[in-house]
Amino acid sequence: MNLVPSTNFNDYQFTHQLRTRFAETDAMGIIHHASYLAYLEETRVEFLRHSDHPYAKIREDGIDLAVLEVFVQYRKPLKFDEVVDVAMVIGGQSRATFQVAYLLSVDGDVRATAVTVHGAVDQSGRAVRLPESLPTNSKEQR
Amino acid sequence: MNLVPSTNFNDYQFTHQLRTRFAETDAMGIIHHASYLAYLEETRVEFLRHSDHPYAKIREDGIDLAVLEVFVQYRKPLKFDEVVDVAMVIGGQSRATFQVAYLLSVDGDVRATAVTVHGAVDQSGRAVRLPESLPTNSKEQR
Amino acid sequence: MNLVPSTNFNDYQFTHQLRTRFAETDAMGIIHHASYLAYLEETRVEFLRHSDHPYAKIREDGIDLAVLEVFVQYRKPLKFDEVVDVAMVIGGQSRATFQVAYLLSVDGDVRATAVTVHGAVDQSGRAVRLPESLPTNSKEQR
Amino acid sequence: MNLVPSTNFNDYQFTHQLRTRFAETDAMGIIHHASYLAYLEETRVEFLRHSDHPYAKIREDGIDLAVLEVFVQYRKPLKFDEVVDVAMVIGGQSRATFQVAYLLSVDGDVRATAVTVHGAVDQSGRAVRLPESLPTNSKEQR
Repeated sequence: MNLVPSTNFNDYQFTHQLRTRFAETDAMGIIHHASYLAYLEETRVEFLRHSDHPYAKIREDGIDLAVLEVFVQYRKPLKFDEVVDVAMVIGGQSRATFQVAYLLSVDGDVRATAVTVHGAVDQSGRAVRLPESLPTNSKEQR
Repeated sequence: MNLVPSTNFNDYQFTHQLRTRFAETDAMGIIHHASYLAYLEETRVEFLRHSDHPYAKIREDGIDLAVLEVFVQYRKPLKFDEVVDVAMVIGGQSRATFQVAYLLSVDGDVRATAVTVHGAVDQSGRAVRLPESLPTNSKEQR
Repeated sequence: MNLVPSTNFNDYQFTHQLRTRFAETDAMGIIHHASYLAYLEETRVEFLRHSDHPYAKIREDGIDLAVLEVFVQYRKPLKFDEVVDVAMVIGGQSRATFQVAYLLSVDGDVRATAVTVHGAVDQSGRAVRLPESLPTNSKEQR
Repeated sequence: MNLVPSTNFNDYQFTHQLRTRFAETDAMGIIHHASYLAYLEETRVEFLRHSDHPYAKIREDGIDLAVLEVFVQYRKPLKFDEVVDVAMVIGGQSRATFQVAYLLSVDGDVRATAVTVHGAVDQSGRAVRLPESLPTNSKEQR
């Protein structure tokens, strides 16, 4: 993993908005740190739909995009009922893997940054080449 | 659903013990009500293993035990780091479905009761007859 | 619990739409049955916001709306990436508790019905009277 | 974060064993990547109890151990009903933060490594000095 997530909104290519759930809070009164991973995933799914490559369709073709690495930096807590902007940008693409950087913010206030690394796998979990159609080049996306 | 969950420990045939997780708490400082469903499920899985019908093996045979109904009564909250005894008993069996009643307690203090209704389904989700080998007759289990 | 959830869309007073997440699926390839409870909760939160009684504000006033009972009937599975309409209606109100019935559907196809029972509790978890301002009378809501 | 998680079991000071749940699987038929964070947390809680500093007690003293960073490398999938050994070792301690490295394995087969970074916070979420009593020096633990 070598992609460094920027805290500059202009460095991102796509933003998905979601609202935190009460079920995602914990006894510290904040959003539990594991819930962020579902936010990143939901954002990737919306990005793929937006890029005309819905994830459900990719899965029908027998390909899954496995999560190989996850790195999250929690900078300020998220609270219940906050509306979160999850910005993402794809980078660090190779034949078999690609990376995604994320910036999570509420009303422009940065809460977390993250990077995930993904690889394509077939039904049996074996690594395969990334589908060529995947919109993994961020430059072309803009 | 017609099985009524008893609050008498003697009415149950199997007990599984687990410890609540911090990830399962919510901002009310208690275990979130959805987490109880994972406790019931974990208890069913342990019961099947204990009865020499591990669920992983049932699934390899192409059968899943789908959840058709869930009913939970939350009597007193569960808190973080509590050790919960989940007692269960099978009842109300028909050709295609069976019911399970549960009693959740901590050191003998009743916290919740529950009933779940299950049916066997094949890989495509179609309802099928219950496997005959299933240990669903509680009388024989004791 | 005596509220019976109708499968007639006209019997409901408020509908919230959400999309199922990949994180909510299970190894049966469908949405795990525990995830439905978060959908019901999210719908209650949106209903309260829509009724000018945001739940975050109710909590600031020192009141929580505890879940006392949950009953879900799973009629057809929900799948990943489906857009679910969660209709709800309030009923069965007493001094200390109220009930909510739900109808979950995708493009008009019924997937589940549910009822939850709630009571107001203070910070220490003690039952208190329902806030008078709560929009719990469905007739007045329409 | 500068702690590098080793794949040598001898580099770890404490091991907690847990069994994966069906509720933690996803539609790829494996344990969802977000579930690992609950496994790491459960292991930290068991380590603190084992070290005579139960986390529930630390929380009663008004201190929470916030998660500042999480880094997970998923090397081979975990499946339903597998018994996972989660080994951990504390390192990289400063006045305000400490790091934990993890090795997740099943029957000696490495599945994932991870690092988490933690800081002590008070009830309002403000960073405070680590409690001196915290068993964060791994050398003394052995």
